[in-house]
Amino acid sequence: MRTYDLSGGKLCDALPAALRADILSGTLTPGEKLPSKRRFAEHHGISVNTVQNAYEQLIAEGYIEARERSGYYVADFPAELPPVPTPAGQRHTNKEEKKADVILDLVTNTTDASRFPFSLWARLMRRVLTEEESRLLAPLPAAGAPALREAIAAYLREGRGIAADSEQIVIGAGTEYLYQLLLHLLGRERCFGVENPGHTKIARIYALNGVRFCPVPLDEGGVDPAALDPLGVEVLHISPNHHFPTGTVMPATRRRALLHWMQGGDRYIIEDDYDSEFRFTGRPIPPLFGMDEAGRVIYMNTFSKTIAPSMRISYMVLPKSLLPRYRDMLGFYACPVPAFEQYTLARFLREGHFERHLHRMRTFYRTRRDEVISLLKNAPFADRIDIREADAGLHFLVRINTQRSDAELRSVFEKNGIRVAFLGDYDIGGKRSDTHTVVLNYSGVEPRELAAGILCLAEK
Amino acid sequence: MRTYDLSGGKLCDALPAALRADILSGTLTPGEKLPSKRRFAEHHGISVNTVQNAYEQLIAEGYIEARERSGYYVADFPAELPPVPTPAGQRHTNKEEKKADVILDLVTNTTDASRFPFSLWARLMRRVLTEEESRLLAPLPAAGAPALREAIAAYLREGRGIAADSEQIVIGAGTEYLYQLLLHLLGRERCFGVENPGHTKIARIYALNGVRFCPVPLDEGGVDPAALDPLGVEVLHISPNHHFPTGTVMPATRRRALLHWMQGGDRYIIEDDYDSEFRFTGRPIPPLFGMDEAGRVIYMNTFSKTIAPSMRISYMVLPKSLLPRYRDMLGFYACPVPAFEQYTLARFLREGHFERHLHRMRTFYRTRRDEVISLLKNAPFADRIDIREADAGLHFLVRINTQRSDAELRSVFEKNGIRVAFLGDYDIGGKRSDTHTVVLNYSGVEPRELAAGILCLAEK
Repeated sequence: MRTYDLSGGKLCDALPAALRADILSGTLTPGEKLPSKRRFAEHHGISVNTVQNAYEQLIAEGYIEARERSGYYVADFPAELPPVPTPAGQRHTNKEEKKADVILDLVTNTTDASRFPFSLWARLMRRVLTEEESRLLAPLPAAGAPALREAIAAYLREGRGIAADSEQIVIGAGTEYLYQLLLHLLGRERCFGVENPGHTKIARIYALNGVRFCPVPLDEGGVDPAALDPLGVEVLHISPNHHFPTGTVMPATRRRALLHWMQGGDRYIIEDDYDSEFRFTGRPIPPLFGMDEAGRVIYMNTFSKTIAPSMRISYMVLPKSLLPRYRDMLGFYACPVPAFEQYTLARFLREGHFERHLHRMRTFYRTRRDEVISLLKNAPFADRIDIREADAGLHFLVRINTQRSDAELRSVFEKNGIRVAFLGDYDIGGKRSDTHTVVLNYSGVEPRELAAGILCLAEK
Repeated sequence: MRTYDLSGGKLCDALPAALRADILSGTLTPGEKLPSKRRFAEHHGISVNTVQNAYEQLIAEGYIEARERSGYYVADFPAELPPVPTPAGQRHTNKEEKKADVILDLVTNTTDASRFPFSLWARLMRRVLTEEESRLLAPLPAAGAPALREAIAAYLREGRGIAADSEQIVIGAGTEYLYQLLLHLLGRERCFGVENPGHTKIARIYALNGVRFCPVPLDEGGVDPAALDPLGVEVLHISPNHHFPTGTVMPATRRRALLHWMQGGDRYIIEDDYDSEFRFTGRPIPPLFGMDEAGRVIYMNTFSKTIAPSMRISYMVLPKSLLPRYRDMLGFYACPVPAFEQYTLARFLREGHFERHLHRMRTFYRTRRDEVISLLKNAPFADRIDIREADAGLHFLVRINTQRSDAELRSVFEKNGIRVAFLGDYDIGGKRSDTHTVVLNYSGVEPRELAAGILCLAEK
């Protein structure tokens, strides 16, 4: 009888593993009889029970079979598998999107996490832990924790002039998750219109999902409804209250015209309001959702930008007409956001911390924006730049009066360790024509670093 | 001049709202000149500044326009919108999937949250709060927090015999989220094979996404590879280690045959291992992933079942050959699970709490299963039932020897307040032929409640 080395690891694992290896390698052949449990045990100085467990395990896995009143046999195995071809491109890279040497990043729109009221948040979390206890482990409705949805409904009523019941609110793990739900809800066979230029991410998600989407060109008022019919758009995805990257606020006439267009067929508008909280002059722009009498505007926003990027909580407000369809079609999904985060955020909203936090952040970003703009205006190259759309949001546009192409400008920046995006980079079709216009995300930037870095613009 | 009632709410909101309402209702007509700021302010006894802010707000929104050296005018508005037709089916139901009067639910596979080591989890959370601080707010790689992925890789090596680098691990917010990613990664144009019977949820997700999927019939060993080619299956989605609802463990010969099938073309296998931790006899079944030499098996599991349903953390292990494609195609997605949950779970795994928790739960569920089975075996109807596949997982099958159809049986159960699922309910095609077999999920059931409730089976 073959003697197995059973010294590695736990015996209850080592024994079946040794037998399994012999069967897979062909050392034990199909139909071969195994030693009786007793003989095997005596030979290895282990208990019969251990051998019995190992044999039973291998029976459960299908490697051996027990024949009544006869013993244990290796199961009937097919011939060896054919050799495995190594697929092309299987070369394994060991890095995870390693960043280049960037000193100053003007592209990534990070919120300044150091400004987050961390100890307050921690206190709320502790209270949730203590007070909610086992509710934290109970499954939630697909649309999210009722407590959070009520708190969001109250915030929207107060802060955004949106009258919605909490049952209209659907919580998601980031806006990308909600885009996906909306694809299903509104119908994958429809044609989705996206703003061009715009967030390339939205177009990528539509493309990944294999749905038809049309980049819709913008004029100074945003999407022109006259452009939609020739393209066959049926669902329009826009950010009318602060467009990225142009910064346009859609004027009221244009809003009404788009609602008019929407009512001309079985059409919907997705209103992405993700950057509306940081408006530095005047009051927040009232959303399209509140103007819609047809009940076919879907409002959407996220806390990633206002609280922290690692806070993957977004939400949408569905018009009531879509609720039955939502429940039938998507009610079987499990809510992707942990209950714990939902309850904490609900308190953060309910107790007024969120509004205070927004207020503080607005002041902080306004100051930072002013510093950055003042730096640019007093720089040696000030006469060759033009700052636009700086009233709102965490970015503005810097048009550079130059003969150089965007590609040349970019290489100048990169040589100086500055990561920069041009307006042309947000062309959905990928045309990237020269715009001479930098989309400057200032939220994660220390003005002093900017001052030191951006002097490369002074090079003629 | 018209006098506005500005007493409701904050003046800075009330004033633009009043003017906006007049413009929208037509009381102020396009082209009409507005009172000068000074006159308006004097008339209402408010400051010129307030009026100026209101006018500027309405300019930003596009309701009015300023003409140089002339004053403010109502912007040019299109005619009234057409009346809104009320879409059919817009009747608004005010309830959220309200449950019927269920005394005993044998369908929902809840884990027993009261068994969760809550105070330990809370302690870990507090430590994460204190020690990770601002890292909690920083954005994470698309695939998840490196700390959690390393902890999962270590657990898989120890507990499941899977040798994978942490970079192969992708964290998701629930398995549904990962199914969606895999659709994109493997290609939406492929044909996906799903087990029939099986989790109808998987089929629903494929259907929602408009991809081709084939229900593959099962024999006593699970999916037969011979059945795949006629159906044109290219990606096979299976749970070989404990199939739901039949409880089948796929035998080793069948596993090798499926791997052989996989290597016969550009094919993939998704191994859904979600229920493998609760095995009551023998050792855990080694996953298919470890037998795959071609590098085209994707392993997938979740913590919803082992920790709590509200813990929306799932993960998959990608073969290395898929990593470049994953990064190129899906690296732009934001990781949907909050950093806080990820760091807490990482500690829970790293410090050995998870394995201890699993061990305790295994004992707890085994005891409960034994109690439930003993109740059934000692019931007055014991001679008319047959219990199958009770070795593993949180459900087993109860075949009822009866002339009654499944529909008749179900109505007997429902009359007694018992929610029950039959094997036929998990037919992907929805055929629902009579199976006389109850899929009994016992994890959330108090045995005494079961004893009281299930006596209705005694009715002939």
